[in-house]
Amino acid sequence: MATIVFCSVNKTAQTTARRCLSSRLKGISSNVTAGECLLLSFTHRTSVPLLPGTRWFSRGNSVRFMSHGTAGRSAGGRTRRGALALSGAVAVTAAAAVAGFLANAGHFQRAEMATKVFQAAKKKEPEGDILERCKGFMSLPITDIDVLQGRKEEMRTRMEMLIMETQADFCKALEKVDGGTFKVDRWERKEGGGGISCVMQDGKVFEKAGVNVSVVFGNLTEEAAKQMRSRGKVLKGKDGKLPFCAMGVSSVIHPKNPHIPTVHFNYRYFEIEEADGTKQWWFGGGTDLTPVYINKEDAFHFHNTLKEACDKHHSQYYPDFKKWCDRYFYIRHRDETRGIGGIFFDDLDSPSQEEVFNFVKSCARTVVPCYLPIVYKHLNDSFTDEEKNWQQIRRGRYVEFNLVYDRGVKFGLATPGSRIESILMSLPLTARWEYMHEPAKGTREAEMLEVLRNPKEWV
Amino acid sequence: MATIVFCSVNKTAQTTARRCLSSRLKGISSNVTAGECLLLSFTHRTSVPLLPGTRWFSRGNSVRFMSHGTAGRSAGGRTRRGALALSGAVAVTAAAAVAGFLANAGHFQRAEMATKVFQAAKKKEPEGDILERCKGFMSLPITDIDVLQGRKEEMRTRMEMLIMETQADFCKALEKVDGGTFKVDRWERKEGGGGISCVMQDGKVFEKAGVNVSVVFGNLTEEAAKQMRSRGKVLKGKDGKLPFCAMGVSSVIHPKNPHIPTVHFNYRYFEIEEADGTKQWWFGGGTDLTPVYINKEDAFHFHNTLKEACDKHHSQYYPDFKKWCDRYFYIRHRDETRGIGGIFFDDLDSPSQEEVFNFVKSCARTVVPCYLPIVYKHLNDSFTDEEKNWQQIRRGRYVEFNLVYDRGVKFGLATPGSRIESILMSLPLTARWEYMHEPAKGTREAEMLEVLRNPKEWV
Repeated sequence: MATIVFCSVNKTAQTTARRCLSSRLKGISSNVTAGECLLLSFTHRTSVPLLPGTRWFSRGNSVRFMSHGTAGRSAGGRTRRGALALSGAVAVTAAAAVAGFLANAGHFQRAEMATKVFQAAKKKEPEGDILERCKGFMSLPITDIDVLQGRKEEMRTRMEMLIMETQADFCKALEKVDGGTFKVDRWERKEGGGGISCVMQDGKVFEKAGVNVSVVFGNLTEEAAKQMRSRGKVLKGKDGKLPFCAMGVSSVIHPKNPHIPTVHFNYRYFEIEEADGTKQWWFGGGTDLTPVYINKEDAFHFHNTLKEACDKHHSQYYPDFKKWCDRYFYIRHRDETRGIGGIFFDDLDSPSQEEVFNFVKSCARTVVPCYLPIVYKHLNDSFTDEEKNWQQIRRGRYVEFNLVYDRGVKFGLATPGSRIESILMSLPLTARWEYMHEPAKGTREAEMLEVLRNPKEWV
Repeated sequence: MATIVFCSVNKTAQTTARRCLSSRLKGISSNVTAGECLLLSFTHRTSVPLLPGTRWFSRGNSVRFMSHGTAGRSAGGRTRRGALALSGAVAVTAAAAVAGFLANAGHFQRAEMATKVFQAAKKKEPEGDILERCKGFMSLPITDIDVLQGRKEEMRTRMEMLIMETQADFCKALEKVDGGTFKVDRWERKEGGGGISCVMQDGKVFEKAGVNVSVVFGNLTEEAAKQMRSRGKVLKGKDGKLPFCAMGVSSVIHPKNPHIPTVHFNYRYFEIEEADGTKQWWFGGGTDLTPVYINKEDAFHFHNTLKEACDKHHSQYYPDFKKWCDRYFYIRHRDETRGIGGIFFDDLDSPSQEEVFNFVKSCARTVVPCYLPIVYKHLNDSFTDEEKNWQQIRRGRYVEFNLVYDRGVKFGLATPGSRIESILMSLPLTARWEYMHEPAKGTREAEMLEVLRNPKEWV
């Protein structure tokens, strides 16, 4: 416990710091109860097992998908690459850890790319004072503020600040349009870290709105490390230990009006540290829309806003991540996508940590401008019982995707000790299953199904 | 195609027989369209892979659970035992085949026991004329009536007649209390066999009521046979082929009134034939109740009716199969059972085929007396919005069990070509998910949860 690596700080010092800082942070809205606002235990008992998958690989303008395990690795540990993720069989402990941001993330079963941090920070934007920024959050960050201030240049700090900020910005924008207030629940992970779940239920505009943040850390189990090594990965732990840190923000918003679509987004970061202090890291995430009826204008706005955010960073990001999204949010047994997509990516670790972070930041900051204009536009749309019924049937499909296919949900549910309420907060308040329901030809319901069965280009 | 084994009959002869018999069968209610009432293709392309599991083993009064693979096997092929089931990785074709009775069955992933048929039929009850019995069915049986008449002493015929009869008896009892009519859909399985799905939706009493029958057959794949052999099973195929036949009836009934519980049952039979003509076989099934509120009288009636049916056959059946039921219908991530249980069994292949069939027949005939008295009793119970709301939350849990844990549903969904509507017919018409819902202490909702968290003895 001597080094301050992966949040390993002295517990007493942390308690003191938190008490001290808590009194300084007046502006932070939090309905956290005494029991919920527990201190993080900072133990190192987490396991993070592995699974093969795909990764995204970019070389200048040449962007392609590669299957995991084939990536190049330079000698001597420079820009070393590998894949890291959780497998079904062994993900138990780690999946429990990320109950919050596992929900709808699907980021842990997918193989994830890691690159050692050697690049100097490029194009770094000024990020402002930690304490000042925290005042706008829904709750205190998961990591103690003094710790964050002490390592403010590190990516895990910058990412934690970004996910906290994304949660707050989105929650406030939703509260403004709805008039309701988010319930803020803080939860702790025994093995290290915790989360903040913000939920607004049965509001004026939103049937159910959930925005989760989680920050978890610990050590890879020997089995996890062994699995990684069996796939050609060189991992040198210190006394057999390989510390990791994972964090993310995720959200699902189900509105009441069938003319306002459901939105989902998730942005996440993973770090693993080797004995010599070098770190492997990657980012993942995405934003996607699930309308009940097709509105081409909305679809264009949503996709175009995402495309503009992507294009600032790489011309292949939008087309590649749009395709990936359509593939991921696919309800196989229905042969239809969950919605009209958006973007989805994982294992992103190039060209540099700074550049990928800037891309993820652009994506995260695009959530509000992607979605809120659509909400405002349809706020007062009238709707019939038939339209509400079709929305409820589509909600049933949403439940099917989330319970049957979503990797994050599956792992969370399979993991003893998970925070089930944070994982299943993505389910709608109400849903419906009608036997043999098939919309009549020429209806707007049939038009929607047609798009779900044949994903379109919107931009 | 020379021998009439596993329904391999001449297609033209069958067509003629069907046409001829169809005209004779006036009393059969069926909304089957020309397209749906296709002739079975009788091809032998089905795969039935394996998986380890548990089996039920009975020796006189000594009844115990055994893990698969440890059972004794007598020399020379007499009373040979083994396990047979579908695995996740390779069950694709076979699972598709049993879309209908896979729903909520869970019988295929569980390892299943097989015993060669050497016992002479014991205590055989007169079963009546095939054609006469068919008049009471919801549709023509899956197997052609002439074929059934030609092998009326065989177990697969007797079981097909029993599942058809069970479907009809239950559907008619439900129609009588509801006043509505079941929609009857007949579907075909390309690889051999098919099913009959009876669904009543949005009735006066029932929100959604589904009663499925399916009869499927084909050949085990080489991989499936190899997996069986790797577990010590001796399987001698003819020209590498191992014909199998599987059939069952399954049902889920969701009533509107929260004081009338949901019921589920499933009874099934599996046969596999070796080169020398000997057959391995087993039965599985169960009936269980999912109330929204605890009513001790109802619970006693339901369990006691099952117990009486079981006790006629073996004193250990009820206590063992009651426990098995509580273990199987368990929502792990909620740490609660789906309902108050009933009975559940699988791999049942002793003491003799006749005796197990008689037991299964007793169980199947107990469905109506188990459930209908409870329906009639609460038919006119008034209920509040809060009670309806709690019902909807419990329906959400039902969806969670069925989509996350039910093996039949999981395999059906994972299988290209499955009849999804028959599989998901078990889902309620409507369901609800509230974030952090926890009933207040001392309420009837809390009493229900307490029972789900600590299964009780009702008899």
